[in-house]
Formats: sequence, C-alpha cells, structure tokens
Amino acid sequence: MPAPQESYLRWENDRLILLDQTRLPQEKHFLALDSVEGVFEAIRKLRVRGAPAIGVAAAYGLVIGVREAPEASFDAFYDHLLKQKKFLAASRPTAVNLFWALDRLERKALSLRERPVREIKQALLQEARAIQDEDRAMTEAIGRHGLSLLQDGMGVLTHCNTGKLATAGIGTAVAPIYLAKAQGMTIRVFADETRPLLQGARLTAWELMDAGIDVTLITDSTAAVVMRRGWVDLVIVGADRIARNGDVANKIGTYGLALLAKAHGIPFYVAAPSSTIDLETATGDEIVIEERDPDEVRTCYGCRIAPEGANVYNPAFDVTPHELVAGIITEKGVIRPPYSETLPHLLER
Amino acid sequence: MPAPQESYLRWENDRLILLDQTRLPQEKHFLALDSVEGVFEAIRKLRVRGAPAIGVAAAYGLVIGVREAPEASFDAFYDHLLKQKKFLAASRPTAVNLFWALDRLERKALSLRERPVREIKQALLQEARAIQDEDRAMTEAIGRHGLSLLQDGMGVLTHCNTGKLATAGIGTAVAPIYLAKAQGMTIRVFADETRPLLQGARLTAWELMDAGIDVTLITDSTAAVVMRRGWVDLVIVGADRIARNGDVANKIGTYGLALLAKAHGIPFYVAAPSSTIDLETATGDEIVIEERDPDEVRTCYGCRIAPEGANVYNPAFDVTPHELVAGIITEKGVIRPPYSETLPHLLER
Repeated sequence: MPAPQESYLRWENDRLILLDQTRLPQEKHFLALDSVEGVFEAIRKLRVRGAPAIGVAAAYGLVIGVREAPEASFDAFYDHLLKQKKFLAASRPTAVNLFWALDRLERKALSLRERPVREIKQALLQEARAIQDEDRAMTEAIGRHGLSLLQDGMGVLTHCNTGKLATAGIGTAVAPIYLAKAQGMTIRVFADETRPLLQGARLTAWELMDAGIDVTLITDSTAAVVMRRGWVDLVIVGADRIARNGDVANKIGTYGLALLAKAHGIPFYVAAPSSTIDLETATGDEIVIEERDPDEVRTCYGCRIAPEGANVYNPAFDVTPHELVAGIITEKGVIRPPYSETLPHLLER
Repeated sequence: MPAPQESYLRWENDRLILLDQTRLPQEKHFLALDSVEGVFEAIRKLRVRGAPAIGVAAAYGLVIGVREAPEASFDAFYDHLLKQKKFLAASRPTAVNLFWALDRLERKALSLRERPVREIKQALLQEARAIQDEDRAMTEAIGRHGLSLLQDGMGVLTHCNTGKLATAGIGTAVAPIYLAKAQGMTIRVFADETRPLLQGARLTAWELMDAGIDVTLITDSTAAVVMRRGWVDLVIVGADRIARNGDVANKIGTYGLALLAKAHGIPFYVAAPSSTIDLETATGDEIVIEERDPDEVRTCYGCRIAPEGANVYNPAFDVTPHELVAGIITEKGVIRPPYSETLPHLLER
C-alpha cells in the first residue's frame, strides 16, 4: 500500500518538522524547529494552521521548551515549564486548541510530580505524541467510514480546506479520498477555490496534487456546471459546528453547494469529528454568524479588487439545514437522519 | 429628475471623452482624445471595453481620423478614410462591433460621395452620434421595461458587469436600477464579485457606487445566504446568447444563481437586447462552451493563488435552462414563457 500519509507536521530527531504553509502554493518547504522561539514564530506567523495542528505544534514546542529545564527539583522544573507555556500560549491568543494542548501537558507534568524530572520530560514527549496520534486516529476513522461511500471512478466535490493541512492527520472531508487513493482507487476531486481566503486553491488543490490525487480546481460559481455535467457523484464538506437537529455551520458557500447538490440529485455529506456536534445548540438558527473584515472581499491575495469603501457582506460561514444533509461522517460512523435522534445517540456511545 | 446617466463615453468639444477602465476600481480618470492614435491605444489597452462601447469609440475615432483629410476630391478623402479605418480596425482584431461601426461610417461616406467632403465629414460625426444614440435608446428601453418589475425598497442581485461600463448607454441588467434611482426609488443591489475576472467587484460595484446606488459586494458563494436571508426580491442578469427555446448562455455562475433563486422562490430575469436572441440555435445544448485560460483561475488580479500546473476547469459561460427564467427583458418588452413561441414572435415585431 502506498503511503499518501506523509505528515506535514512530525517529530523527528528531537526536532519539530513543519511544512511552512505561508509558502503555499508556491513551494513545499519544511522547517526543522528546535527552539521554543522557532515554534512560537511558526504559530504566530500562521506557518502552521488548523486547530488540531496548532495544538500539536504547541505541545511539541513545550517539549522543546523544557528540554533545558533544571532537573534538580520538580518545583524548579515546573516554574520553567510555566514560563515556556505562557510564552507559547501568547503566540495565537484566540486558538482554543493551543491552550487545551498546553494544559494537557501541564496536567501530565503535575500528575508525575513525584517522579524524577528526566522521566517527566520523557512523559511530556509521549503526551505530545499522544495528542498527535489521537488526532491522526480520529481522522483515519473518519476516512474509513467515509470510504464506504466511495467507489472507483467517482467524482467528489469539496469546499475549503479540510485535509492534511488542517489537521494533524489526514483531514476530515478529504480523509476518505486519501484512503481511497491508498487502496488504489481513482477518485476525481473538484476543489472549489473558496473565496475570499482561497483555502481551496491555495491548500486543498496543493495537498491533493502533492499526494498524486486527481484534483481539478474551479471557481466557486463553477460548481453548478460541474454537477450538471454529471462529473460529481458526491459532495463532502467539513463542519465548524453541528446543531442537535443536524443543521451544519461551515465555511461560507457550503449552503449554496448543498442546494445545488439537491437540484442535481447528488448526495451531500458532512465529515467532522463528533466533538463538532453541539447538543446544546438545538438548531442552526441559534448559531450566530460571524461577519469578517470587508477587506477580505475587497482584496484578493493582497490586491485591491473593489472600490475603496465598498459595502461588503462577508459572513465567515453559513448554515446548511439538516434536510439537505444525506449523512454526517464522524470517527464513530456515518450518521443518518433523523439527526435529532441519531446525533444524541452517537454521543452516548 | 436627477441624472444618473452621466456617460463614461461622450463627444465633447470635438474630442472623445472616455473613462479609463484600466484604472478602475482605483480611480475615476477621464481621457480626452483628439488623435486617432489616442483612440487606437485606448481600444487596444482595454481602456474602453464592452462591445457597444468599443464600436462607438471606434466610430468617433474615425471621425477624428478624417478631420485633416483632403477636401478637394472625394477619392482623395476616401483614400485617407480607408487608411484610418484600417488602422483603427487593427486595434482589437476580434471585436465584431468595432468592424461593424467602422463599416457603417464607410457606407455613409460612400452614400454621400456626390456631396462636398466637408459635408461628408459632418455626416460622419452625425453617424457616430447615431450609433451611440441607438445603443443608448436600446438600453433605456430595456431599463423602462425592467422598471415595471421593481418596487421601492426591493433587493436585486446581479452578476458580472452589464452596466454603463459595458454599453454606450445605461446597460442591460442594471438599466432598470439606474431608472429606478432616477425616479427616487431605493433599490438595494447585491453584486457578485464574479470570479475569475471579477467584473462584479471591479466594475459593477464601482459604477453603482459612482451613481449613488446602494450596492453591497459579495463573493459568488455568498449569494445563497443573501437569498435565504430574504434580502433578494429579484435576480437580473445579462445574456451572451439566447436560444430559440429560451435557454440562456451567460457568464459562468449564472446557472447556479438561477437554481439558487428557484430554491428560494425568487424570480430570475434575464435582460438583453433582442439582437442576443438567436433563433438559429434551437436549445442551449447546441451552444459550445468556450473554455478559457486556466491561469485566469490559478491567479487573481495577477497574483498566483494556486499551485503551478494545477488542473483547472474554466468555462467562460454556462447555460441556464429556460424553465428557470421567469422572463427576458428586451428593448421591445418583457418576454414570458413559452419562449419557443414568444421569442420568434418578438423578433417579427
């Protein structure tokens, strides 16, 4: 079996090896980081992005950060750890996964306070690896469940970036495609460019090409034609949040795709970790739509493309009603309607 | 009544006044051209674009070009005219309207060969004005018929640029909005940016802002959300070609908008001169879809946004089936289904 799972983030020879995403799609350049300052800079400058990937990078960063910590007493070590943790946490102050990963390492250290510091250092590396392994296993499980929907020769349309560049594993919506490739299946992928930030053009097209997968880049408004031509058998997208009734908040453009898929009789799937399901949110109506900086639309990749001061409506995401969702692919299986029954049941497993 | 009809192309004090569209959306800069070389350069460098506008500019260019022509004999004058005509025709060798306008002036000159050359020169200016006046009158008639569909406070979504910048008058799909504004109505316009070439962002948003019309720029994939929110009462788009059965070829993205409009119960209209109707084309299936340079999608406004060599599907336009079209707004009235009966009937008028 070929190995399309080359990781863009890995621990190798005591260093954190990271694909520098700011150089995409122009070049594939890996950084080898062995200082906490280097990891800080990589997170801050978005050289690594995607919530799970940031968490894993920060965890390895803390492992590097405590490497030179005093080993004479736990307290001296812990003091050093807290300083490094505080430093790393400031790299991207809004990234929840970053704090979560750092907290998890801190808890690990505290749980071992009676052990020799050298042993704690080893345990922290194991914990960072565990965080990465768990994310990888989760994405592979999503991939396996999604794979059951694919057949050789199919066309799949996807939106935004939900692949290896967005997780520490093989992604969510794109995970089944990586596994299909590994099994020797040919899947033709259509990647929407995903304005305004172009994650589809910059990242998805790049990573699928890098893995030798047949990908065709289209503008967002070309999706309807590609469907009409019969080239799309399945749409798979990711999710930011899934309400109790199965309504799905995801990158702007998702809702329109779901309607177009319905008009062409194409099944529309959502792939996401079960942690994305929020049973406290009854329906998509309760989800507040964040509006982002109008300049994201007034510009494209840094160039001004619209009149200065133009009114812009720039919602970060939209809500796709559950009626349009054929199934939700999670690490625990593919969930089907009626979601208000199946989703709560899934989380009890 | 206010005058939102300030023309971006006009004859003033024996000079051709042209808005330089290559400086949009950054600045509103008019050129005052009084040499045939200047007009040639403006057409060649796309400072003026849109088929009707190019024809009118070329016609005025020929008027300038024969200004210094010998007046002693028709033959000497005609010889000079042909040289100038040939020169101007080379400015954009694929623009059908350019040749059509220049031919029309040549025919005018030939029809007056017995008259004094001075008189012919005057007549050519009149002919150039006539070409512009006819286009203006046609767009205003489209606007008047389209206006019957609008009510104060409505929201209208449009695609690409079909406005003053694309014609010598007030446009096609946008014409009713200019007339509504002139009548004191408030219409909220949503302009799709229209990837890949961004005519919506660069041109439509600019010209509507310039006319004081309430316009909101959105990415193409935001249209579905704007419709869902109830902000759109009507979609109006232009057309490149209309088949006998009412199928409409227009800028890529149009078909998807038509499907989204249907899903939200929003009437979808097409506005175009009756010359766009091609009775020789039975249905949209006969229309060959031109595929354009993949680099239009791999780049945005000159910046590379996708991997080098990425596969791209970049159709120039799409075909919207007639079932999705509530009506076709022409200079002769608003045409309704069944189009295979009403369109031939219209052209007989």
